[in-house]
Amino acid sequence: MERYDVIIVGGGPGGLTAALSAKNAYPKKKVLLIRREPTALIPCGIPYIFHSLAKIEDDILPNAPLEKNGIDYWIDTVVDVKGKKALLASGKEVEYDKLILATGSTPAVPPIAGLDKKGVYFIKKDMEYLRGVKAALQEAQRVVIIGGGFIGVEVADELLKAGKSLILVERLEHLLPFSLDPEFSEMLEEDLRARGVELHLGISVQEVLGEGKAESVLLTDGTKIACDAVIVSAGYRPNVELAQKMGLEVDPRHGILIDEYMRTSMKDVFAVGDCAAKRHFMTGDYSNVMLASTAMAQGRLVGSNLFDVKVIKSCMGSLGTFSTKVGDLAFGVTGLTETQAKALGVDYVVGRSAAVDRHPGKLPGVSKIEMKLIYARYSHVLLGAQVKGGDSVGELINMLAVMIQNHMTDMEIDTLQIGTHPLLTASPIVYPVITATVNAIMQWYPHEC
Amino acid sequence: MERYDVIIVGGGPGGLTAALSAKNAYPKKKVLLIRREPTALIPCGIPYIFHSLAKIEDDILPNAPLEKNGIDYWIDTVVDVKGKKALLASGKEVEYDKLILATGSTPAVPPIAGLDKKGVYFIKKDMEYLRGVKAALQEAQRVVIIGGGFIGVEVADELLKAGKSLILVERLEHLLPFSLDPEFSEMLEEDLRARGVELHLGISVQEVLGEGKAESVLLTDGTKIACDAVIVSAGYRPNVELAQKMGLEVDPRHGILIDEYMRTSMKDVFAVGDCAAKRHFMTGDYSNVMLASTAMAQGRLVGSNLFDVKVIKSCMGSLGTFSTKVGDLAFGVTGLTETQAKALGVDYVVGRSAAVDRHPGKLPGVSKIEMKLIYARYSHVLLGAQVKGGDSVGELINMLAVMIQNHMTDMEIDTLQIGTHPLLTASPIVYPVITATVNAIMQWYPHEC
Repeated sequence: MERYDVIIVGGGPGGLTAALSAKNAYPKKKVLLIRREPTALIPCGIPYIFHSLAKIEDDILPNAPLEKNGIDYWIDTVVDVKGKKALLASGKEVEYDKLILATGSTPAVPPIAGLDKKGVYFIKKDMEYLRGVKAALQEAQRVVIIGGGFIGVEVADELLKAGKSLILVERLEHLLPFSLDPEFSEMLEEDLRARGVELHLGISVQEVLGEGKAESVLLTDGTKIACDAVIVSAGYRPNVELAQKMGLEVDPRHGILIDEYMRTSMKDVFAVGDCAAKRHFMTGDYSNVMLASTAMAQGRLVGSNLFDVKVIKSCMGSLGTFSTKVGDLAFGVTGLTETQAKALGVDYVVGRSAAVDRHPGKLPGVSKIEMKLIYARYSHVLLGAQVKGGDSVGELINMLAVMIQNHMTDMEIDTLQIGTHPLLTASPIVYPVITATVNAIMQWYPHEC
Repeated sequence: MERYDVIIVGGGPGGLTAALSAKNAYPKKKVLLIRREPTALIPCGIPYIFHSLAKIEDDILPNAPLEKNGIDYWIDTVVDVKGKKALLASGKEVEYDKLILATGSTPAVPPIAGLDKKGVYFIKKDMEYLRGVKAALQEAQRVVIIGGGFIGVEVADELLKAGKSLILVERLEHLLPFSLDPEFSEMLEEDLRARGVELHLGISVQEVLGEGKAESVLLTDGTKIACDAVIVSAGYRPNVELAQKMGLEVDPRHGILIDEYMRTSMKDVFAVGDCAAKRHFMTGDYSNVMLASTAMAQGRLVGSNLFDVKVIKSCMGSLGTFSTKVGDLAFGVTGLTETQAKALGVDYVVGRSAAVDRHPGKLPGVSKIEMKLIYARYSHVLLGAQVKGGDSVGELINMLAVMIQNHMTDMEIDTLQIGTHPLLTASPIVYPVITATVNAIMQWYPHEC
């Protein structure tokens, strides 16, 4: 029987990073990655196969890093694990010393009748399935998207660019309801409406109607919306089937239970990415963050701590840092929103700023940045940030995530030394991170002098 | 005689920020800003008046923030200060309680014969003078730029876009010689050469030749270069005339001596910006950083610490963070370069990475990022970073500056949680800050297992 020092189950971003970091940290160990898919996709790139990318093959997660680093990979399915041995669908068995589960997530199926009809599609991380979806959507003109989270909104933006008529239904009051505060969601909604998207917010789809194939959707208020296709993007659920079979401790809603070093309840078994339960960075409660970037932060950590704990990590839980771009608007969010701060009973101060991202503002390529920072009123640390703006939002929100992870206070951020350039950033006078911080400081600062 | 609680001398970025932060921190104090120029310019925007901005008036530092915040401003020149009284060129006198000098800098005049000829221009922060330069350059076809620092390179880029023939002479071996390591300077040089710029590196201009007006420049090796105009951008010198007259402690090369709270050697007198001597963040030696963003970090601090020290600052000195864009390439640098680390005798490790700033890389708008990080070998803290890439470099380098200011180590950065998005950032697998860090770690990490 073959034997590997490290076996990784799953070839998405978490599994791939875990394999690479295991090999980097322990170059003499034999590492094997087993994945189900003949071809792995870049999950966050999937929305872009519908328009921005010429073909699905442009969204492939390459095998080259595995090959270059001497990591073996097999296309197979692990059906069970018994006594440090993985049993595969092909009938093969393989022994391991350390096992890393990176089994990912699958689309959630909301309680809506008629989802089994032709013309109803999910955003699965499966190349052949998506090839079919793409082909079918090319024929469709009116598309209903159920679910206004990141995937729903990004697919809507792509189909809009491809010239389709879009109807987006979100059961909560706003788009990206778990990620943005209402005023930021509204900027996004305004943009989509201005581009012709029909938004139905605060209402659910009851049924997909049609003879054999989807012809319309029925909302819970009786509204009927004609369409040629339906896309369901109602979130993802951790894929914990194998973990449950193995007898690992699992929370079915949140995933495989792990500690700060990604260790499961079974010795020598680790879990990373969407399949693993995450803890909220501030409260330690379960969090529903499912991001490739989070999976990879875990993958990097697990690799270097497989055979001994090399990297001591402060227990901080998962700080979700999201960004997206819809039309010409980019949005970024990290840490707590105001809605979340309120729900957690945090005593907070909000600082706001607005600025253009070039200086002077007459330079070409200008976008307007709007920023909102959430500070703890008494301990003064930065807890969360939301930004709307141009393309610089992608790294701006990462800078804010670095600040939160360093527990920086308003005073430290106020005295921070940053760089600015006319063609690349806002003016130093109105640099949005600083001015929003000053705005927060002025709200608790006693003005007696 | 009129009396103000706070008087600021100088209306550039440092003076303006100092005035605003003084008024924010002490709203009941009477604040006056005195500046020489009827119209203040955005200094870092000046190169862009030559092409990207339609007119010089698009680069004005507005008076609106002063007016909106109830700060008085006079157009006048402070000729001397005696016994808490400023004497003005207009003959007026005005009393103060706290005085902030923000007198800026003036172009350095290198030891070259013939710089007084017609057709030889300096990049002064003076709107009427620059209006003349812009008009004259519109007539010129062949322009020689003396000095390959940021201003020289940015003006060259603008004039190139305006269709001129450019000759750039830098006495050191590379462009941006104090800011970038040679391999990054070479990327810039390659780009400028490919766009037709004639570069003369490692050689000086001896004389500007011509009958009354500049017709050619003579290099020290005897080369003669015909031209219609010459721009001298050989750095700036702190403007310390008033400070010296007042008897403040001044280092003539580096500026007015100040402590961490911007206090000069005279009670109740502060100094910020280009006129103030700065200390290097790592060594505490004098540094020649002259940046609007540094001036404004000081301006923000001085305002809140005028009447009492409200914001305790850790003594860290000036961390220069620069960014620029030339053609389609953006460059960013913060902290130590490798050249500087070597000169300081630091035991360092270099980590490198390369990645595209979209994922998958087939998405439109892709630029290639190349990154170099300098880590302290034994204490593991990040000391410096250089990046070449697309527009995201502007905030990417700020994120790296935040990391340095938090004394983050390679392990902390390796386990960092960042956000990524296909349309906005590199893929999480190859996120350049992480992969360059891993590359550094692998160089000291003992690979025995």
